Amino acid sequence: MERKKIAIVGVGLIGGSLALQLNEKGLAARIVGVEANPEHAARAMELGLVDEMLPLEEAVAQSEVIILAIPVDKMITMLPGVLDKVTSQIVLDAGSTKEQLVNAVAGHPNRGRYVATHPMWGTEYSGPQAAVRHAFENKAVVICNAAESDEDAVAWVMQTYRKIGMHLLEMDAVAHDLHAAYVSHISHITSFALANTVLEKEREDEAIFEMASAGFESTVRLAKSNAAMWVPIFMQNRENVLDVLNEHISQLRKFKSCLEKENYEYLHELIENANKIRRILG
Amino acid sequence: MERKKIAIVGVGLIGGSLALQLNEKGLAARIVGVEANPEHAARAMELGLVDEMLPLEEAVAQSEVIILAIPVDKMITMLPGVLDKVTSQIVLDAGSTKEQLVNAVAGHPNRGRYVATHPMWGTEYSGPQAAVRHAFENKAVVICNAAESDEDAVAWVMQTYRKIGMHLLEMDAVAHDLHAAYVSHISHITSFALANTVLEKEREDEAIFEMASAGFESTVRLAKSNAAMWVPIFMQNRENVLDVLNEHISQLRKFKSCLEKENYEYLHELIENANKIRRILG
Repeated sequence: MERKKIAIVGVGLIGGSLALQLNEKGLAARIVGVEANPEHAARAMELGLVDEMLPLEEAVAQSEVIILAIPVDKMITMLPGVLDKVTSQIVLDAGSTKEQLVNAVAGHPNRGRYVATHPMWGTEYSGPQAAVRHAFENKAVVICNAAESDEDAVAWVMQTYRKIGMHLLEMDAVAHDLHAAYVSHISHITSFALANTVLEKEREDEAIFEMASAGFESTVRLAKSNAAMWVPIFMQNRENVLDVLNEHISQLRKFKSCLEKENYEYLHELIENANKIRRILG
Repeated sequence: MERKKIAIVGVGLIGGSLALQLNEKGLAARIVGVEANPEHAARAMELGLVDEMLPLEEAVAQSEVIILAIPVDKMITMLPGVLDKVTSQIVLDAGSTKEQLVNAVAGHPNRGRYVATHPMWGTEYSGPQAAVRHAFENKAVVICNAAESDEDAVAWVMQTYRKIGMHLLEMDAVAHDLHAAYVSHISHITSFALANTVLEKEREDEAIFEMASAGFESTVRLAKSNAAMWVPIFMQNRENVLDVLNEHISQLRKFKSCLEKENYEYLHELIENANKIRRILG
């Protein structure tokens, strides 16, 4: 596979980790960074994540592949403009929502050069210093609406994700957003709300923090996630997230009702049903 | 510190991991297991967790320390009977709820020989095969109502927990149960309910499981936890768990309301408030 000149727009957790992995696997001839936050730009250079920082327009002109890894609200604003500027380049994004983004460029004369993707990996941290080696390995990446993209662009993107160790899933953007609400977005809302539940209590008593256990840490760690990244995701996937959130609240109410009515047989059933998640988590 | 003859009642995740750690640190002259489940008994012997299996009565008679590590409903039934049989032995438990247990032996003539403890460690797995080395290290252990226990018993228990690497917290059983509801019990309910939310959806579509990410795994892994252990915990800590669950549902409703009303400024605030959990999780 020929090494390409790659521009990464947004050298944070995702863009930075992609840069590390593209270098590690020898897939990039050169990586140019584009970064609106000057501190992040300086840090990304210090960390050697990219070879050079350039303004967007120059980066697009000098690269064969442009990867967008910025919050999904900024993505929607930026993607049509980037497509205006490309000729034969491949453009892909790594955003957590897909429907609105795909709609934003439907009918664009260069739509074929764009491949909509969502590599299903992340952590609760952000910025270039959060980038980690060997990220994405053994994780899923979703390719959406591949039929709307040029074959050569899809082929390069798929091959690249495979080379960095991901397994590919294809689906349309609408289905992606629904599924993402279940396997990612709701987990974040639950975690944020759980953190707020405990923080509300903490005003009264500091002792609980000394007791915080591994189970607690596991369920609330996502609550450290960045608002600038997550608010736009919830905005763009509002209807699906609301549906899942309603379902989740109604599942919690079943637990509440069991406790209120002291119906411990049903509580046992609810827990045994939840245990079936072993099938998915392994 | 003189090695003691120790009986562990319930050689599962907690009892088995304690056995490993007591041996590792050279704190036990001999460990006798008591186990109602014959398969678990056989497995615990195979794994070398204990030196011998004995019926409860003999184990109590032959040991200097008796550690109860069984589900909290069984604990309440068993503890008074064990105290009936002890003379100079030390009895401690490792249960997740404390108030009802302490009340069940208040006024018992041998109350002083019993120390109520909750080592704040566990995993979502159960049984002797779930026991792990170096468990409990750098975790908190809560000692409850220490003034009701004999000084020598408290001293040995505290020294032992310190030697296996835990840091001690002292509080009364009522306070413990309230705090445990916040830092442990609610996380489990959230996780069970989240698993059921996703499993409800799964009837319609299998694709979401291929997309399950690390964030999802983190928030639902506790949903694999055992009903036989958790139903009695929720029963015994019913009022606190209900209070926290109500608070959690009301926190989730704030997220729901933000999405319904498209109030993204407040959503941003809720997330930034949740980020303060960094202070606790580090």
